[in-house]
Amino acid sequence: MSLTVVGSIAFDAVATPFGQRERMLGGSAVHFSLAASFFTEVRVVGPVGDDFTQTELDVLENRGVITEDIERVSGQTFFWKGHYEFDLNTAHTDDTQLNVFGDFQPKLSEVSKQADLLFLANIQPDLQREVRAQCPGAKFVGLDTMNLWIDIAKDSLVQAISEVDCLLINDAEIRQLTGEPNLARAAAAVMEMGPRAVIAKQGEYGAALFTPNGFFALPGFPLEDVRDPTGAGDSFAGGFLGYLDGEAGEVNQETLRTAMGYGTVLASYNVEEFGTERVGRLTRDEIESRLVALRSMTNFSAAAN
Amino acid sequence: MSLTVVGSIAFDAVATPFGQRERMLGGSAVHFSLAASFFTEVRVVGPVGDDFTQTELDVLENRGVITEDIERVSGQTFFWKGHYEFDLNTAHTDDTQLNVFGDFQPKLSEVSKQADLLFLANIQPDLQREVRAQCPGAKFVGLDTMNLWIDIAKDSLVQAISEVDCLLINDAEIRQLTGEPNLARAAAAVMEMGPRAVIAKQGEYGAALFTPNGFFALPGFPLEDVRDPTGAGDSFAGGFLGYLDGEAGEVNQETLRTAMGYGTVLASYNVEEFGTERVGRLTRDEIESRLVALRSMTNFSAAAN
Repeated sequence: MSLTVVGSIAFDAVATPFGQRERMLGGSAVHFSLAASFFTEVRVVGPVGDDFTQTELDVLENRGVITEDIERVSGQTFFWKGHYEFDLNTAHTDDTQLNVFGDFQPKLSEVSKQADLLFLANIQPDLQREVRAQCPGAKFVGLDTMNLWIDIAKDSLVQAISEVDCLLINDAEIRQLTGEPNLARAAAAVMEMGPRAVIAKQGEYGAALFTPNGFFALPGFPLEDVRDPTGAGDSFAGGFLGYLDGEAGEVNQETLRTAMGYGTVLASYNVEEFGTERVGRLTRDEIESRLVALRSMTNFSAAAN
Repeated sequence: MSLTVVGSIAFDAVATPFGQRERMLGGSAVHFSLAASFFTEVRVVGPVGDDFTQTELDVLENRGVITEDIERVSGQTFFWKGHYEFDLNTAHTDDTQLNVFGDFQPKLSEVSKQADLLFLANIQPDLQREVRAQCPGAKFVGLDTMNLWIDIAKDSLVQAISEVDCLLINDAEIRQLTGEPNLARAAAAVMEMGPRAVIAKQGEYGAALFTPNGFFALPGFPLEDVRDPTGAGDSFAGGFLGYLDGEAGEVNQETLRTAMGYGTVLASYNVEEFGTERVGRLTRDEIESRLVALRSMTNFSAAAN
C-alpha cells in the first residue's frame, strides 16, 4: 500500500501558557506525515521556500518520510503565528503569510499519483479536488477542512467532499457546514454528500466516527501536561490513515476503529510538546503502550479489569 | 442495599426548539429517583407544596420509588423556568422560585438514614452536609453541585466534598472549583479533597471517570432527536448510583464502569422527551438494549465486530 498527503509545510510561531517558539517546523502535511510514518511509507506534496533547509527536511527524512514531491519555490515558506489561552482549546491566529503557498499548484510525481490512500489536508477545496483527480486509483481518500472554506468556498468544498471517502472535521465545523446542530444528523447529512465515513474531531473530548453501520467514539487520551495543541488534528489523521494504509489490510468497521485508536494516540503525543518535538522522537513501543492503555480506558465489558 | 436521595422536587417550565411545557414534574431528586428505580428501591427526601398532587406522586410511585420522606409544606412547590437555544447545550434560567424549598431543613426517617448509598443532589452545600451527617453508615455517597455554590459558598462546598466518596460535576465547574484548566489535574485536585472518584459530566460528549486507579470515559449515546436536556445529569447519577446500590454488589473499578454505562443510558432516554415523560414509561429491556449498543460503540479490541 502507499500513502500520499498534500497540505501545508510551514514555519510556525506559537505561544501557549506553557512556553513559546518563534520559528519551528509545522504545517498540516508535516504533522500528518510524521504521525503516519510509524505505520507506512508516506509521500509529502507541498511547496517550501528558500528558507527551508536540510535541517527541516531531516525531521521528515529521519522518520522515513519521502520528500521528493516537496517543491522548492523562490520566496519564503508558509508562516503561521498563533497563540492559545489558558484552556488551550482555541487557536488564535496572529499572523498568516501564505508566501510560496499563495500560488501553489499541486504537481504530483507519478509515484505519488499511484497512492492507495490519499489525505487532502486543510487547503483550498479546489486544490483538494485537483489532487484528488490526479489520484484516480486511490481506494480511500480523507479530507480535512476549516471554517474559512465553509465561509468563502462552500460550493467547492461540498464538491470536494463528494469526491472523498472520509471527512475529518471539527465538530463545530460539521454543524456549520450542514446547518444541523445535532451531530448525528450533521454526520448523516455529510454522508448524503458522498463520504462513507465522517470523523468529528472534538479536541480534548476525543473523536467520533460515523459510518452507515454505526457510531464509534473515543475520548482524548487524558494528559496532565498539554503544551501545544497545534497539529493535533493532523497527527490524528496521520495515525488514522497511516495505520489504514500500512497495517490494516482493508478498510472496514474493525480497522476503522483501531485506526481511530492510533489517531488518538498520535494526537496525544503531539500535544505534549511544541510542534514536532515529541512525535519526532516517538517510538512505536510508546505508541503501542498508549494504545493498550486507551483500550482499557474505554472498555466496560464484564471481563474488563 | 438501600439508596436515599435528597434534592429538589419541582415543577418545571421548559422551552426548547422542539417544544415546550408550562408546568411539568421535575427536580433533581425526581429525575434521579426515576432513573435509579430500575435497579433498586430508592427513597426520596425533599419538600413539596400544597400544589403537589397525587398525580405527581404517582409518577414516582408507579416506578416503585418510596415517597414517605417527601415532606408536605404549606406553600408552593419549587418552580424553575428555563429555555434552551438551538444547540441545547446550555440551560438559560428565566425564573427560579424557591417557595417551600427556601426554608427546607432535611429530616430523614430512620429508614432513610440507614441508606447504604446516598446521593446529595445539587442543593446548598450546608444542607448536603447535614444529610451526610444523618447517614453515618452510608458506604458510598455521591454529590452533585453547580457554579452558584462555587461562587457563593465555596468553603462549605469544599467541606461537603471532603465528606463524600464521589463528586459528579460538569467539566466547566470542576475547572472553576479547582482553578485548574486541565481536567486530569482538576480531578486529581478534587481527589486530594477527599473523594475517591470524580465524574466529569460533559454533556453531549459523555462523561469521564477519574479514580486513583485510572481513567475511564464514555461518549454520550448518539441521538438524532434530543428534545429536552433538563435532568440529564440527575438521570445519569440515578442510573449510576442505582446500579451500584441494586446490582453491582460492591463498588470497584469494574462496577464503576458498568455504572457509568447505565448512567449514560438513563441520561440518553431522559433527553429524548420532555421532563419525566420518556423515563416514566421506560423498560428495563430498553435499558439493556442501549447498554449493549453503547458497549459496542466504545469497544475497539481486536475481537470487536
